[in-house]
Amino acid sequence: MNEINGGICAPRGYKASGVAAQLKKSGKKDCALVVSTVPATVAGTFTTNLVKAAPVQWTEGVCIRGAAQAVFINSGNANACTGQQGIEDAQATAELLCHGLNVPITEVCVLSTGVIGVPLPMDKIKNGVTLSIEALSENGGEDAATAIMTTDTVKKEFAVEVPLSQGSVRIGATCKGSGMINPNMATMISVITTDAKIEHAPMQEMLLRVVNQSYNRLCIDNDMSTNDAVVMMANGQAELDTLLPGTDDFVAFEKALVAVCQHTAKLLVKDGEGATKFITINVQGAKSDEDALKIARSVATSQLCKTAFFGEDANWGRIGAAAGYSGADFDPRHLSICLDNLEVVHEGLPTRYQEADAAAIMKQTDITVKISVGDGLGKCTFWTCDMSYDYVKINADYRS
Amino acid sequence: MNEINGGICAPRGYKASGVAAQLKKSGKKDCALVVSTVPATVAGTFTTNLVKAAPVQWTEGVCIRGAAQAVFINSGNANACTGQQGIEDAQATAELLCHGLNVPITEVCVLSTGVIGVPLPMDKIKNGVTLSIEALSENGGEDAATAIMTTDTVKKEFAVEVPLSQGSVRIGATCKGSGMINPNMATMISVITTDAKIEHAPMQEMLLRVVNQSYNRLCIDNDMSTNDAVVMMANGQAELDTLLPGTDDFVAFEKALVAVCQHTAKLLVKDGEGATKFITINVQGAKSDEDALKIARSVATSQLCKTAFFGEDANWGRIGAAAGYSGADFDPRHLSICLDNLEVVHEGLPTRYQEADAAAIMKQTDITVKISVGDGLGKCTFWTCDMSYDYVKINADYRS
Repeated sequence: MNEINGGICAPRGYKASGVAAQLKKSGKKDCALVVSTVPATVAGTFTTNLVKAAPVQWTEGVCIRGAAQAVFINSGNANACTGQQGIEDAQATAELLCHGLNVPITEVCVLSTGVIGVPLPMDKIKNGVTLSIEALSENGGEDAATAIMTTDTVKKEFAVEVPLSQGSVRIGATCKGSGMINPNMATMISVITTDAKIEHAPMQEMLLRVVNQSYNRLCIDNDMSTNDAVVMMANGQAELDTLLPGTDDFVAFEKALVAVCQHTAKLLVKDGEGATKFITINVQGAKSDEDALKIARSVATSQLCKTAFFGEDANWGRIGAAAGYSGADFDPRHLSICLDNLEVVHEGLPTRYQEADAAAIMKQTDITVKISVGDGLGKCTFWTCDMSYDYVKINADYRS
Repeated sequence: MNEINGGICAPRGYKASGVAAQLKKSGKKDCALVVSTVPATVAGTFTTNLVKAAPVQWTEGVCIRGAAQAVFINSGNANACTGQQGIEDAQATAELLCHGLNVPITEVCVLSTGVIGVPLPMDKIKNGVTLSIEALSENGGEDAATAIMTTDTVKKEFAVEVPLSQGSVRIGATCKGSGMINPNMATMISVITTDAKIEHAPMQEMLLRVVNQSYNRLCIDNDMSTNDAVVMMANGQAELDTLLPGTDDFVAFEKALVAVCQHTAKLLVKDGEGATKFITINVQGAKSDEDALKIARSVATSQLCKTAFFGEDANWGRIGAAAGYSGADFDPRHLSICLDNLEVVHEGLPTRYQEADAAAIMKQTDITVKISVGDGLGKCTFWTCDMSYDYVKINADYRS
């Protein structure tokens, strides 16, 4: 598997664009479009928030039917908490694309991200649809990745070429989101493209498995969005046989998809609002994978742990406390904690480590916290970031 | 019921003290002692964190047996994650008090609060016990309230006189804690005294009910401490008959105890680390009280809601999103949100409120958020604070 350029346009048979339609006050790009030149199978995972944005409801319908040819994403307005009007606006957006691209309306995904509770400005959306169709290009991946950004500071894209038995396929991905992120079952917005050929049902199952190993293993804050969505299209333009579950090729493809999604998930965490450090939490020895996940998530979302990381303070007591209240079942007398390779707690008690050694590790921008809670087989890897003054600043000022 | 002076020494038959034993680097008071002049019944609720401090384990044992005459609390060191040594140190502290006060060791509660993972400096503790016994006074409530402070900026105490059928009883309380607070079943450290006469079993049940309406309805951050404890002593020195469950007097007393604990719980939130605003969350119309609590806790712990309060931003979308991911079951089309008396969301949609009106409410230091999610009978009141730069600053710098 090799990294290649081009993001979501790296796989064969995709065009993309990103244009400015004045949805963002800044005048920056705010409408992205990804189109497959031929009909593609589609899969998706979505927010489990009861307060679910209108476009998410629309796109869930498309993904259940299993075929799509276009994904349109606007930033600047989430079209969430907008009632019946929001549903009609999402459908009207899909209709504009259906006419502009000459594809069935049932094969058009629409997604939105931005401020909640403000109706979509449909005149601007109409203009955005027109401009984004005009701008479609085989080199448009980067523009699309740029247009979906909100408080993100860098665009996020990645693509790989995966050798299979008959030839190679490509996978491309872009994603956005750096706040209101604590996915569970679904995530922020991500679009994944591939030129492999896969049927809808196995692709949907694969996507759920992959998301549970990538986007669902990260947190930035403790808030779950109304708009989280991952949409994946497979258009078969690599012209290889259909990938069938149980084959070596299917396994190799899924492994590559995990790598792509973990890579982009980490990009999200690294660009977390106000983040200055990237923290990997490894839990092992739990009674089950669920227990390991509870512990990892508890530490990863603890405000006290996150502010201690920002303060470069090896405050392992907060890590132990967060593990203790996670709801996982373990004996605290078997709790051990390592910061990178420095063991600071062994079997429930602090070791005789040197504060200077711990301090040196805490100064790094990339830190791994290993938490062992016994000799069970349950384990989990989770990614998070620290919490800085800037997290508060960004979120205190967001709307105003 | 009237407010009276004296804190935990307001009820008859109690002495208290607060002294400095150099456990705190600052040289401030760090050892508190509360003693009943006669044996008292005792009840307690404690942290549900698996990583439970040694003194909490000791004091749980005292409270289960049901009789106590002294509560000693040190700040500056939590005696948590200290293994067998911690257990022995907690017991040794109780033994020092047992000899100094001439009371059975089994009737001495010891509690600790401060840094995790450092063994108790027993020479300093020994000195603190001696000094605090010497300093015992009927006017020592304020000193004790001061000595239990850690990152608290103000001491917290309250007392009331409660008229009952035969005469009056008094209730006094003090508490501490402004970070690592997200109680569930148990809380930060609080000591409650009364001169009423109550048997252990009904008092324990009453305390659980009262804590569920007070200390368990607040959050400052999303972290649950290893040391949370509420201990209540009743020494009967008002010389009235025993309060029996089912009587009007029992009901009146419990009502007063709720008032005392809600008052002190609110003092905790108002002194939350970095807090600039006091937020009351009222949820109604939920399918059950549990669902209402889920929604209230979700909004109260949401970093995005808390930073929006700090930013004085009427960002009701974040409130709706936090309700939506709370795990409670409701129909978002029946979600209504009021900021004080200004309805900003009605049946799932924003109202035509004036931003200036919402902005004026958000500038207040005391704001009530009313969330209605249907026509169910489930309801909950919860208290929280905003999240400011200072929360990050206090917690990034705590140990260093």
